[in-house]
Amino acid sequence: MTIERAVPAGMRICSTSLRVRYPETDRMGVVHHTHFLAWFEIGRTEWMREAGCSYAELEQGGISMPVIEASCRYLSPARYDDVVAVEARLEEVTRVIVRFGYRIVRQADGKLLATGFTRHAATDSAGVPRRLPRQLASLFSSEGGA
Amino acid sequence: MTIERAVPAGMRICSTSLRVRYPETDRMGVVHHTHFLAWFEIGRTEWMREAGCSYAELEQGGISMPVIEASCRYLSPARYDDVVAVEARLEEVTRVIVRFGYRIVRQADGKLLATGFTRHAATDSAGVPRRLPRQLASLFSSEGGA
Amino acid sequence: MTIERAVPAGMRICSTSLRVRYPETDRMGVVHHTHFLAWFEIGRTEWMREAGCSYAELEQGGISMPVIEASCRYLSPARYDDVVAVEARLEEVTRVIVRFGYRIVRQADGKLLATGFTRHAATDSAGVPRRLPRQLASLFSSEGGA
Amino acid sequence: MTIERAVPAGMRICSTSLRVRYPETDRMGVVHHTHFLAWFEIGRTEWMREAGCSYAELEQGGISMPVIEASCRYLSPARYDDVVAVEARLEEVTRVIVRFGYRIVRQADGKLLATGFTRHAATDSAGVPRRLPRQLASLFSSEGGA
Repeated sequence: MTIERAVPAGMRICSTSLRVRYPETDRMGVVHHTHFLAWFEIGRTEWMREAGCSYAELEQGGISMPVIEASCRYLSPARYDDVVAVEARLEEVTRVIVRFGYRIVRQADGKLLATGFTRHAATDSAGVPRRLPRQLASLFSSEGGA
Repeated sequence: MTIERAVPAGMRICSTSLRVRYPETDRMGVVHHTHFLAWFEIGRTEWMREAGCSYAELEQGGISMPVIEASCRYLSPARYDDVVAVEARLEEVTRVIVRFGYRIVRQADGKLLATGFTRHAATDSAGVPRRLPRQLASLFSSEGGA
Repeated sequence: MTIERAVPAGMRICSTSLRVRYPETDRMGVVHHTHFLAWFEIGRTEWMREAGCSYAELEQGGISMPVIEASCRYLSPARYDDVVAVEARLEEVTRVIVRFGYRIVRQADGKLLATGFTRHAATDSAGVPRRLPRQLASLFSSEGGA
Repeated sequence: MTIERAVPAGMRICSTSLRVRYPETDRMGVVHHTHFLAWFEIGRTEWMREAGCSYAELEQGGISMPVIEASCRYLSPARYDDVVAVEARLEEVTRVIVRFGYRIVRQADGKLLATGFTRHAATDSAGVPRRLPRQLASLFSSEGGA
């Protein structure tokens, strides 16, 4: 755990803005629920980039972090052309599992649209589970307060 | 609860087959996790059709059943061109909430790929929550053993 | 060109049925135009399977056929829960290029919803262009009347 | 045609950056071709916003501009986490048809990945074709050099 960190370990929230795309809406006139999981992924990707560990580079190094569980509660609909903030936060790290939590907030009025989490295992490029690489575990535990 | 039903109330499972599409895969070589939620939706749509209540007709009648919670556990990857069965089952019905449970099974080897559930509210066409229409509640409770 | 073939070379049409999925619709209440390209892909995949050459196996053998051009004319909207037929036909084969043509027809009323085509190159698994493998060229020319 | 415009009519190019999302990739390791059409849509949406006419507002006013033709040539693959620029330009305006042209360029190396166009009709909210509203036609012709 670094001393310089202004925000307590485990509290760093990465907020990423995105604008709702037309094909993300459905005929109910709102964003189809599946897309919130894709937004969660964007949120944790940017969280990792901020932590100095781009997911693209991680995969180039032969490590993947597939989703083993995903959950979302939908509180209020998102609509076409809304700008939403995806807030991602590391919630838990063990030797083999990482858990991120998320909030989706509409920027225009600050309304909370959804909350959720994903859990991830680490695997090699063949999909075989493995422990979190030391470097990654170290990064995550410094951020996540293991 | 009808007497003619061979399967006990709440036990009817609707199994729908689908073949994995190329754009459902990602660069990890497996189906991206978001698509399982879309498959769940196909499963419950067919469950409702079998129950004599097509979701398309329901919406034409001014009733929607938006997802208020979705959850999925990913056990094993699905791959391009796999044929999978989406098994959907009504798990719970209250005056305002319906819950479906799902299993995704690869047909070639019977392997269980994922399990999950979704919870739904009933709303009118403007998105305002309302009680389940009597007809629907009756249908669901006869199926779901409320 | 084989003698046994009942249908003249180049005329074999493979028709694949699919039901419109909820997330394929957009807030205009109709299928978003991007999905027609995904349906074209389903059509040519089944065309190839019928020809005895599954695309999945082709890729396992180290050959890909990426889309180098795609075009679609949208004549009438497809709607949620419609069953549509994707008709695919091989239109042209050269040493390096294959072209498929498509028609999307709604089954309930036979209405033509869209027409289009895709052109494909052959590449190895690293994405490097190559000639069509002899076996594939032979298959295609017997079907497509090169 | 306005005199104040620095760029000649029809030459205004709106460039929008976006980062490739994981689910936009497929098992070939590159972006699936369908997503380029979704990117085109993002490009023209931002073009219209820059022109002072947001598409969301247009639809709220009862006018839609559905795609009646789309075409794309794929020159080089886009990959996960690439930042690409979507360049959109109005190419043609008649009383009933609007045509936009697009270029997709990878920002890191300036490589041109794809080119294409879409053609659009104007319809009312029921999907019935109509002339371009005067205001829109005027906007487009001042931009597009009718």
